[in-house]
Amino acid sequence: MFIAEGIKVISEFIEAGFELLYLYATDANLFDNKELNPILISEQELKKISALVTPNNCLAVFKIPKTKLFSDSGLVVALDDIRDPGNLGTIIRLCDWFGIEQLFCSETTVDVYNPKVIQSTMGSVSRVTVVYGDLAKMLKTTSLPIYGTFMDENSIYSEDFSKEGIVIMGNEANGISEEIGFLVQHKITIPRFGTIQKTESLNVATATAIVLSEMQRKISGK
Amino acid sequence: MFIAEGIKVISEFIEAGFELLYLYATDANLFDNKELNPILISEQELKKISALVTPNNCLAVFKIPKTKLFSDSGLVVALDDIRDPGNLGTIIRLCDWFGIEQLFCSETTVDVYNPKVIQSTMGSVSRVTVVYGDLAKMLKTTSLPIYGTFMDENSIYSEDFSKEGIVIMGNEANGISEEIGFLVQHKITIPRFGTIQKTESLNVATATAIVLSEMQRKISGK
Repeated sequence: MFIAEGIKVISEFIEAGFELLYLYATDANLFDNKELNPILISEQELKKISALVTPNNCLAVFKIPKTKLFSDSGLVVALDDIRDPGNLGTIIRLCDWFGIEQLFCSETTVDVYNPKVIQSTMGSVSRVTVVYGDLAKMLKTTSLPIYGTFMDENSIYSEDFSKEGIVIMGNEANGISEEIGFLVQHKITIPRFGTIQKTESLNVATATAIVLSEMQRKISGK
Repeated sequence: MFIAEGIKVISEFIEAGFELLYLYATDANLFDNKELNPILISEQELKKISALVTPNNCLAVFKIPKTKLFSDSGLVVALDDIRDPGNLGTIIRLCDWFGIEQLFCSETTVDVYNPKVIQSTMGSVSRVTVVYGDLAKMLKTTSLPIYGTFMDENSIYSEDFSKEGIVIMGNEANGISEEIGFLVQHKITIPRFGTIQKTESLNVATATAIVLSEMQRKISGK
């Protein structure tokens, strides 16, 4: 099971077909859909079960759906050991925005049902298929081209992206691991601009934003 | 005065010429530069003065430098009421990466010397000129073209960007305010991809990443 908080996030999960197990609210008339019929609780009680510093006015418990199988097609983002829940949440929101249907997470990547991830995706997680598994094994058997982001490789602006493919983003501190790096066929880099050029790296979520924008711009011919 | 924590962040501020007022460390031999001579304190004492949940091993107090004047030239990012310290920190890091020399913040934007901003910039704040002021007034007098990000306007991929200009990013919840919106000459949008298209918006820091990448790609002719 996992929890989601706030009318907006909860409504998006219900709409996406997730199985609602329990719904708690501090106000009986919070939801337009009268069939929802939340269990009334006090603000004090909500505070006890909420994962938020400033609790909302409702909390839902959903059933974690059956794990979907990875489909070896389309555009895929693969994460090699992303640890920060906020980064995973932002990346899921980006996948949703840029029409990426599958997100493959290494087994060491933070859990997508972590309350902080669920809240920061703003409901996007209900529209992106997230699969956890052995990343090296998947990369060894895929028929898709494999892209990965590194420092000082080919500029993403001159790279040709194919219509289907896997793009790997690495760990916050260490980037893509050596084992996974060996399996990357197209090593790409976001170029730095300006004269000083001392910034050590970009945050992984902002780097994902730039790569997905550039990939989709090229693929769509815009 | 403002505080900075950790060897890396402190060293970048020293190197950038900021005036160091006090330096505290839990280990006398932490810094290679022996002239620094930190004041030895216990981990308990550091915990009391640190702004971090998990304190580092050193903390410095720097003097806030004199406010620089805004120069009406080059590429400028302007922020209309950004409230989250993490977002401001990430945007400063992006400005540094993409060679944006000036960041103009509306007076309601979070303080750049907020400890959370300083830590999340990873030292980039020492290389980007950050100016606070009346955003509407500046926009009314500038000779630079004014770009602003909105929903459902011209795609950034088909927009021509000039070599100098101001790009405005709006508040986390409300976007660019009406008053500022009236002053924007080029309204631009990051297009959505995919078939579902339900994502309501992108986080302001990831949107800034995409816009700066696309601006610099076009301007540099890459």
